[in-house]
Amino acid sequence: TANENVIYGNRGMSLEEEINLSNKYYLETNVAVIHKKPLPIQIVNVDYPKRSAAVIKEAYFKQASTTDYNGVYRGRYIDFEAKETRNRASFPLSNFHDHQIKHMKACIRQGGICFALVKFVAHQEIYLLPATVLFTYWDRRFSERKSIPYTTIQEQGFLIDYQINPRLPYLQAVDLLIENLNSVN
Amino acid sequence: TANENVIYGNRGMSLEEEINLSNKYYLETNVAVIHKKPLPIQIVNVDYPKRSAAVIKEAYFKQASTTDYNGVYRGRYIDFEAKETRNRASFPLSNFHDHQIKHMKACIRQGGICFALVKFVAHQEIYLLPATVLFTYWDRRFSERKSIPYTTIQEQGFLIDYQINPRLPYLQAVDLLIENLNSVN
Ligand SMILES: [Mg+2]
Ligand SMILES: [Mg+2]
Repeated sequence: TANENVIYGNRGMSLEEEINLSNKYYLETNVAVIHKKPLPIQIVNVDYPKRSAAVIKEAYFKQASTTDYNGVYRGRYIDFEAKETRNRASFPLSNFHDHQIKHMKACIRQGGICFALVKFVAHQEIYLLPATVLFTYWDRRFSERKSIPYTTIQEQGFLIDYQINPRLPYLQAVDLLIENLNSVN
Repeated sequence: TANENVIYGNRGMSLEEEINLSNKYYLETNVAVIHKKPLPIQIVNVDYPKRSAAVIKEAYFKQASTTDYNGVYRGRYIDFEAKETRNRASFPLSNFHDHQIKHMKACIRQGGICFALVKFVAHQEIYLLPATVLFTYWDRRFSERKSIPYTTIQEQGFLIDYQINPRLPYLQAVDLLIENLNSVN
């Protein structure tokens, strides 16, 4: 069972590192092809030395217009954002940007599967939060609260248990999302 | 009809610019969400001035491990590479990298839709070439020829006619790919 494989003490690894390792395992075992998108960079000045590689001498970080990860799993388009918080009682919506939410809404309109992988560092817990739950709170963030309660995420999200391989078996939760979609249609 | 919308004389625009414009149109009209992946950059040195944005002072271009574009259309995962050639009689396979082909093969295994958008600059023609055709020639590139004949691309690819909007209506050819997949299954 999953419990036999639970590993504690991944405190040194960032959420992104944990996801990247898991995606590497999924790729190598032919389960899914999911990659982190490179950071968008505005390049201003490049040096082309005669006998060596081009050197970027001046560049700036651009705001990403989409999310952290995308790819394909079971024929489905997968798209998600990874976020960590040190808060205990809620997940602040200020962690998300308007263009990320817009992008996820657009992907869902095309039949994609979107979610956030949310890590509560203090609880050492990672949840898959369906984008629809995120949207509900996001759309009311000015009229109601500016964060998603931890209890909501416990109830409406899927806890991802640490395992040996993949370290974060988050595609198990994606299977449940796909089942829900299939039962609705 | 499509012919009424044909535009000639896009000679000044690169294939990538033409695709980016088309994807923008597809995004704004809620047809598909397809983006160019940012170039992967190895950042070595960043300066953090007190009152202004961080400046990347030294960085290098990394080889992309995947393809140029991906996204979602009609619930399908879409993944493709854009390539231009000045050759008239064939498309040189040296334009592709091993990791790009590996990536496309992996995506197809997961049920994704993969292809190349190939521009013959001399003919001012752009074709959607299904990845399966590309793989056939790629896998024989050492034993047989190192390029795909123009006539093969004419026969097994889909010519994309320029239009006003989207400039390159390549998703029409993707519709045909999806139809073929559905009729096989
Ligand atoms: Mg993130
Ligand atoms: Mg290219």
